[in-house]
Formats: sequence, structure tokens, C-alpha cells
Amino acid sequence: MQLSRKADYALRAVAFVAQLKKGDLASIGKIAKARHVPREFLAKILKELTRAGILISFQGVTGGYRLSRPPREVSFLDVIEAMEGPVAVNLCVEGSHSDCTQEKGCEIRPFFVKQQEQIIRALKKQTFHSFANAR
Amino acid sequence: MQLSRKADYALRAVAFVAQLKKGDLASIGKIAKARHVPREFLAKILKELTRAGILISFQGVTGGYRLSRPPREVSFLDVIEAMEGPVAVNLCVEGSHSDCTQEKGCEIRPFFVKQQEQIIRALKKQTFHSFANAR
Repeated sequence: MQLSRKADYALRAVAFVAQLKKGDLASIGKIAKARHVPREFLAKILKELTRAGILISFQGVTGGYRLSRPPREVSFLDVIEAMEGPVAVNLCVEGSHSDCTQEKGCEIRPFFVKQQEQIIRALKKQTFHSFANAR
Repeated sequence: MQLSRKADYALRAVAFVAQLKKGDLASIGKIAKARHVPREFLAKILKELTRAGILISFQGVTGGYRLSRPPREVSFLDVIEAMEGPVAVNLCVEGSHSDCTQEKGCEIRPFFVKQQEQIIRALKKQTFHSFANAR
């Protein structure tokens, strides 16, 4: 019942990028060093964050990454879902519920439905805005 | 960020056993069928629940499993931790915090500390008492 290391690294990377001054870019090397993330794994993560529309990538020697939108418009949920797909605290509360073989008979599911709602609400509410001027 | 299938099956199994009448025992076959859990995997899970002191196992043809204590004294947290070890929603909130390489510099951790507290509180509070007479 744990966030993947990949999603944790992605949150750290986005937190760093959210703190850049306007117009600045962050290179992979800079982020990796500042946030103790292995460089090769980070490169893969940054590519996926770019593909998901959370970061913008600029090529070249002076290139790097910045957020695609204001930090207040990027939530923890955006970043985690870009890494792991839709958040589901238990198999039985995944989007389609197709894995639930119990249906009406299950006493466990209502508990996880509630936990799921709680965590998604918290992850949506937590944006990178508060980090933006934290440096 | 998802409960393991093993812990989900364990919750289902304990929910079933919690509903037994006083003095009754449940066989592996009975639990597996009622809760749609693969029998061999279930056997392993029941052994671990017994080792963790949540279930008591009775050998023999008329043997089976029952709870070791009243359903109100068995929480979801007990069962999940028996399967997965201590619950930690992110690596950085595991018991020793030994994996945290950021320490003071990390803006991410306070969020997960809060989520961790919330989920542990909920998992502790949710016992099998409410299931005991649900049949």
C-alpha cells in the first residue's frame, strides 16, 4: 500500500522545477543532484512527465525543463497518475471494478471506497503552489 | 499506491471467519469458495494469519479456522500488517525513515506524514465487529 519509488521521484522532481524563477530551466543533472534521484531513472521520468503535459522540455546545451502551467495548476494527483495511472487504493475500487468478484456480498469494499475518495481529494488539493516560493 | 492482492484476500478471509457462529470453524475450501480466493494462495495466507495470532487453526477432518479473539479486537490494520508489514504510504514515512535522503529539505514528506496518519487511524478503527452479525 505504498507509492512507487518512481512516483516519489516524480514528485520531488516537479517540486524542484516548481521552484525555478520565471524563465529558468532545470537540467536533468541539476534536478538529479538536488533531489537525490538516480540520473537515468530521472531522465525516463522527466520524459513521461513531458508526455503527460506537466513539463515542457527544451532541447540543446542550454535546454532543460520547466512546468507547462502555473504550480497551482499542478497537483500531486496529476504527477502520481502520470506515473502510475489512476490511483486505486485497492483492486476493488479501480475504475471499472472489473476485478471485483464479490459485488453485493463484499463488506470490505465500502471502507476502501471511502479511503479512495479521501486520498484522491487530498492529492487533488495538494498542488505545487506552496512550494513555488519556498526556496 | 495499492493494497496487495494478498492483503485484500486476507481481509476477505478474516471477514468470513468473523461471521462464523460461536464454536464453528471454517475450512480452507469453504472460505476459498465463499470469498473467491484461490485455494492454494489462501492456504498460505491463513498460515500467516495464524502465525500472526489473528486466527487459530484446528487440525483434522473436522478442523478449520476461527478468530483468536473477538471480532471487535481485530482491525483491518492488524490483518494488513500481518501480510505486508508496517503500512507506509510512501518510502519516506517508513518506520526508520532510513530511506529519506532529503531530510529537512523535502517539501513532499509532510503531506505523506499526514496521509499516513489518516489511513492508519482509519485502518485501526475499522474492526471486523460490524461484520460479525452481518450474515
